[in-house]
Parts: sequence; structure tokens; C-alpha cells
Amino acid sequence: MLSLLDIRSRIEAGQLTPAGAIDLCRAAIAARDPGIGALASLRAEAAVPETGPLAGIAVGVKDIIDTADMPTQMGSPIYAGWQPKADAAVVARLRRLGAAILAKTTTSPFASADPTQTRNPHDPGRTPGGSSAGSAAAVGAGLLPLALGTQTAGSVIRPASFCGCAAIKPSFRLLPTVGVKTFSWALDTLGLFAAGTQDLAYALAVLANRPEIAGAAVAAPRIGLVLQDFAGEAEPEARAALEAARRAAERAGARVDDLILPEPMPEAWTRQRVIQDYEAAQALGWEYATHRAALSEQLGQHLDGAQAIPASAYDAARRAAHHARRALKDLFSDYDALLTFSAPGPAPQGLASTGDPRFNRLWTLMGVPCVNVPVPGGPLPVGVQVIARFGDDGRALAVARLIEEALARQ
Amino acid sequence: MLSLLDIRSRIEAGQLTPAGAIDLCRAAIAARDPGIGALASLRAEAAVPETGPLAGIAVGVKDIIDTADMPTQMGSPIYAGWQPKADAAVVARLRRLGAAILAKTTTSPFASADPTQTRNPHDPGRTPGGSSAGSAAAVGAGLLPLALGTQTAGSVIRPASFCGCAAIKPSFRLLPTVGVKTFSWALDTLGLFAAGTQDLAYALAVLANRPEIAGAAVAAPRIGLVLQDFAGEAEPEARAALEAARRAAERAGARVDDLILPEPMPEAWTRQRVIQDYEAAQALGWEYATHRAALSEQLGQHLDGAQAIPASAYDAARRAAHHARRALKDLFSDYDALLTFSAPGPAPQGLASTGDPRFNRLWTLMGVPCVNVPVPGGPLPVGVQVIARFGDDGRALAVARLIEEALARQ
Repeated sequence: MLSLLDIRSRIEAGQLTPAGAIDLCRAAIAARDPGIGALASLRAEAAVPETGPLAGIAVGVKDIIDTADMPTQMGSPIYAGWQPKADAAVVARLRRLGAAILAKTTTSPFASADPTQTRNPHDPGRTPGGSSAGSAAAVGAGLLPLALGTQTAGSVIRPASFCGCAAIKPSFRLLPTVGVKTFSWALDTLGLFAAGTQDLAYALAVLANRPEIAGAAVAAPRIGLVLQDFAGEAEPEARAALEAARRAAERAGARVDDLILPEPMPEAWTRQRVIQDYEAAQALGWEYATHRAALSEQLGQHLDGAQAIPASAYDAARRAAHHARRALKDLFSDYDALLTFSAPGPAPQGLASTGDPRFNRLWTLMGVPCVNVPVPGGPLPVGVQVIARFGDDGRALAVARLIEEALARQ
Repeated sequence: MLSLLDIRSRIEAGQLTPAGAIDLCRAAIAARDPGIGALASLRAEAAVPETGPLAGIAVGVKDIIDTADMPTQMGSPIYAGWQPKADAAVVARLRRLGAAILAKTTTSPFASADPTQTRNPHDPGRTPGGSSAGSAAAVGAGLLPLALGTQTAGSVIRPASFCGCAAIKPSFRLLPTVGVKTFSWALDTLGLFAAGTQDLAYALAVLANRPEIAGAAVAAPRIGLVLQDFAGEAEPEARAALEAARRAAERAGARVDDLILPEPMPEAWTRQRVIQDYEAAQALGWEYATHRAALSEQLGQHLDGAQAIPASAYDAARRAAHHARRALKDLFSDYDALLTFSAPGPAPQGLASTGDPRFNRLWTLMGVPCVNVPVPGGPLPVGVQVIARFGDDGRALAVARLIEEALARQ
């Protein structure tokens, strides 16, 4: 993979120019993307700023995020060739920081559950996950050092786990979703993919203009290990990865306790879909009313069903989420972070499914920062998920880094 | 003014067709809009559904709200002629309910504080207010029975007060803002303008698919009268209107207590601008980076200043808002509604200013439903503001109706 911090330090040392760094990415894309299909479009002549904290960083932008100089096609024929007027807020911010917006990355239609044609860079017979398929695959394949995705259920952390890259779904609305196609306004969260946790910390700190995110450190963190039994069992590879991460954390000085999440949380987990679907039926109201036949299969059926969700069920789901957020806040007075599965196992075979977000739904609903840390060693990538309290993205990344480094020393 | 419910009952009685009802609006527009300038664009051939709870209702849509069949120009030369791909979620919903989307209404640039060229229908030498200038003026002038606006500080309730029509800023996110240009994602709220509170209740209930909003009733409500001293004094006309509304409420059986808002609320009031401006700097990041010279005067200066707001000030403002929301929730255990000023006074002279949103800022930040009730009798329109707890839009409208009817009986 291409490390953002490595590229930045070579540029600062005068060993590489920003334009040269972008050319490295273009060469990697030319060599490897034909077998993966991570990109929805590639800008032939991207502006490459000479200065700024992200100068020389080529960024891939999930194709539900507006770009003023590239089509934004939502992974759907309904938006084929569609050119928005403006950059999304996060894209404008990236440009201001010196980044080169090089490519749009493939997405499930409207960030839904339907698959894309993108292949997993570690096994072309497997899915890269979704809905941020192209962003995870592009970073995992070493095509780009940074990519943007979004998560409504599990669309950042799960594909990162499948593609073997680091990723963060930050605290809700830490990064603005203005100019990002909405699926569910209470859940949609912008996330970042990169080679490692320090790359993520650097990028998130400058994007959010919060230097403390990159400067956070924890010694001897208290970690709660949760299996999320309410979401079903994980596969052996995911259980092995979680156990490896636990031992690595303990070797690095962490105290790791087994923890059962108290009741409001399993209950909230069951309600995430209600909020997601009730809002999606409204958010995609124009597409559903005017282009029902052009919607992808699962999304179309999904929205058919969502029309009937009563407001009372939505209100009850929001109350359940509110109670669970309070319980989770209390829980974080005893723990610096939680450690759990990023996905049920390695990427599933075939391209028919993007995998299951069941270990991600609760945390998106809680709005808390979640980091995927790849666990090396298996034949296929599997990651673990590090979670911190709302607003403490720096701590989530610091604990993730501690585990990442301990795993690397093994 | 054109009453939505009156049009609907004439259609249901077979005295008017939906197309005939739309023609009434076209005739009113042709006769009176040249002197007002409420419309940014008018659809020559609008679809007129024959059925649905809003069949025959011509709607004006503030020109920061996306429409698939009309340009959406944001009140700014930057978006001159811009044609979005899709309808905003609320527009798709209106069409599904049978409404005819007849016109886009003028807006301050990006719903900011800068004026439009629209004139007050009650005095062409005065502002209609802003930023939802055209929607308030079109309904106040009897051009349309229903119009959509948005409020980030005071952009629905204030222009309604100036133009003499009823309006509701519903609970935060009761109506989805998908497809509405963002100024501040924590504040932007869709609102409705209509001739009276029953029109509002009917329209909001069907739009939100919550029949209980139209069915709510209160007998002998407990009302807290608040002057919002922290926001400065109101002008004599506004004080007289508030006193008239108080007496009307008492005659109708309400108990009205004078109430001083407890401390977290004045403090939160001072922080509304911080949240608004911090988010606007991000939301309008592309416009600022690429079209600074084409921004309107106040907005440009506003965004210049907003670049320097630190994340810590934003975080502190959000905490202050959170504390105030809790205090307000407690307060509503003693009161069905609060009654206060909608605006400092009647519409100011001239078109240079859209007036001051100082009596609206707190309530937008609190996310609670607010209704403007016009108080008849003065030479120029002045309204009062009825406020209920979060999520109880039906109660806000029921108390507003009680006052509206008592004022009419006077």
C-alpha cells in the first residue's frame, strides 16, 4: 500500500515532488486497476497543488460525493454522466489542503447493499465489500494513499477489513456530508481509507482542522472486548483476528476486559434498519417515484418495503438509539476503547454479495468513532474494530495504533 | 390570501377542479407579482395531478430547494441557470401528494442575510424579510396557498410576520432537508407558509405522514409568555401585538404566565451564530474557494470572518445548545406552549435589510416547532410566535389556532 505519511515525508525531504507522487499513483492505477475495477472515473489532468499539508496526495472519492470537475454517477444508471455544479464540502476542503482529486471510486448504487463489479485486490474472485467498494479496493491495492467513503450501516469498516487497509468512520458529522448523496441523514457518515492508522490520524486532523486528533496518545489503555452476540457469531478467521488483537494489546500494556453490552444497546442494534430505511424512503423519493425500474434489485425491494414503515416505528427507534447512546457514554467512563469484529469474517466468495454489516450497524447508529485495524497473518485480510467515545476520534486512533504496532512486532 | 383548505373543500365539493385552482394562482401571479417580484421562476406547463390530498394546491418552492424541472439558482449569480438532476425529498413528497410545483420563489443568496429585490406585498417600500423572501411574499400577497421556506436563524418566522401570513418552522428534521442547499446542517429547517394555522396543520400532517399533527387540540392551554430580554427590546408594534395575543389567549381560556427563560437559554442564544457560521464556512467551501468575488456583500464578509472560528468554540457552542435543550424540555413540563415575538417589529423600511432574526435564533437552535400567527389590526403586519416542545408540532399549531381564532373574534 501507499503510505500517505511516507509520501509526505519524501516530499518534505525533497526526494519527491507532488506531481511525481501523483504520477506514482497513475502508474499503479495503469498497472493494477484493470484487474480490480476500483475506479468509476479517472481525471486525465488533475490539478496538483505544490503546497499544503496534503500536497502530493492523490485522493479517490466515492462516487456518491459531488465533484465539480468529474461526473458523480451514484453507481446508478439514473445518474449516468451526471455532472454536479459544486464540490462537496469535504472535497473543497481536500483541495484547499493541497490534495489532488484524482479519481472517483466505485460505489454500490446510492451506497446501498447491491454489489459493484469491483474485485477484491487480494482475491479477484471475492467482493471488496461495499458500499465504499472502490475506495477500499483502491487503497488496499496500493493505487491511492487516501480515499473517501461513507458508512450508513457498515460501508467503511467492513470493506476496509475485506481489503486489508486501515479506515476510520469518524464521529458523526465530524466531516461534513454537504454534497454527499443522502441515504439516511441520521446515519450517513464520511470515512477515510489509508494504509495505516497514522496516515488516517494525519489526514483526519488536517481535514477536520483539529490537530489534537493526530497528537493523541494513550498509555496502558483500558479496553473492553465485545463479541456483539446479539449480532450472531463471527467466523473462525474473525475470531482468531480478534484474539490476536487482544493479545497484541495486552503485550503493549493494555488491560483488556471481556464485556457484555448492556440492554439498551442490543435493542438499539435491531432498530438501526428502521431509521435507515424510513429515511431512505424519503431521501430517495425522487428516484423511487420517477425511476423505480432503474433501481438496483435489492435497493428497489428495500424501498418498496420501506414505504410502509410508520412514523411511530421511526420515533421509537430514535428513542431506543438515544437511550443506548447514554448507556454507551456511561460505559466509556470505564474504558478508553472497545475492541470488536470489523466484519463476520474475510471477504465472501463471489461478487454477488458485499458481505454483512451486522457488526457495524450499532456503532454507526451510536455515532462513535470506529477504526479498522488490519490483522496480518491470514491468507485473506481480516481486521478488527476499535471504538471510542463520541468526539474522541484521537483516542480511537491512538488505541488502534497501539494494536497495529503491537501486531507488527509479533 | 388563498386558503389551502378552502381550495381543497371547493375541489371536494365539485365547485373547482385542480386545474382551475392552479389557474386561479396563475391569474393572481399575473396580476400582482409584477409589483412584488416574489418568483424566481414560474413553470409555464406544470403537471396538475387530479387526485391526492394536495391536488389543486399550487406550491412555491424557495430557490435553494432542488427541483428536477425548474432551475435552482440559490439567489446567486454563481448558480445562474443551474438545473439540478433530482427533486429535493420534500418536493418529491409534494408531487406524490398531488401538489403542483408551480414556481420557485426568491431567496437571499444561499439563504444568507443579504436582501433580494422582492417587495413586501403590504408596502412595496419595505422588505418582505428574508431569507425566504419570495415564499412569504407570495403567500402574503395571495399568489399561492402554500410555499416552502427554510430557517437557519429566523428565515421563516420573521418574513411571515412581515408579510402577514401564517408559517411554521417544524421540529428539526421533521421534514427532510435532502436536496436543500446547506448553510448550517445543525440548524437548517424546512418550513411552510400558508394563509392560516389550519392550512399549515393540514399540509404538515400530510407532508410528514403524521395525521395527529392536524388532529391535535388543546383546551385551556398553559402558556408561558417570554420577552427574550437577552435579545434586546421589541418595538411598540410588536409589544402591542404580543399583548393582544396574550389577551386573546386568555379570553379563549388559556392561562398565561410571564416567564423568564433560565440561564442556559440566553447563553445558548449567543452561541447560535457560532454554530451557523462555523458550519457555513464548510458548507459553502466550494463557493468561497472558487467564487469569492461573486458572493453577495454580507455573505462574503461573513464567510471571511467564519474561516477563523476554532473547532473549540464550535464544540463549546454545541455543548451550550445541548444544556439549553434539556432546560427547555423541563420547562415544557409546565407549559403547553411559549408565546413570544416573531420579529422586533413590522417590516423595516427599504430593501437594504431583511430585518433582524434576534427573536428567532434561540428557537431554531433548540429545534422546537415555532408558528407565526398574524395579529390583525395594525397598518402593517406583525405576528407573534407560538412555540412547543420538540416533536409536538401538533400542539404548537393547536395553541396557535386558538390564538388566531380568538384574535379573529375580537
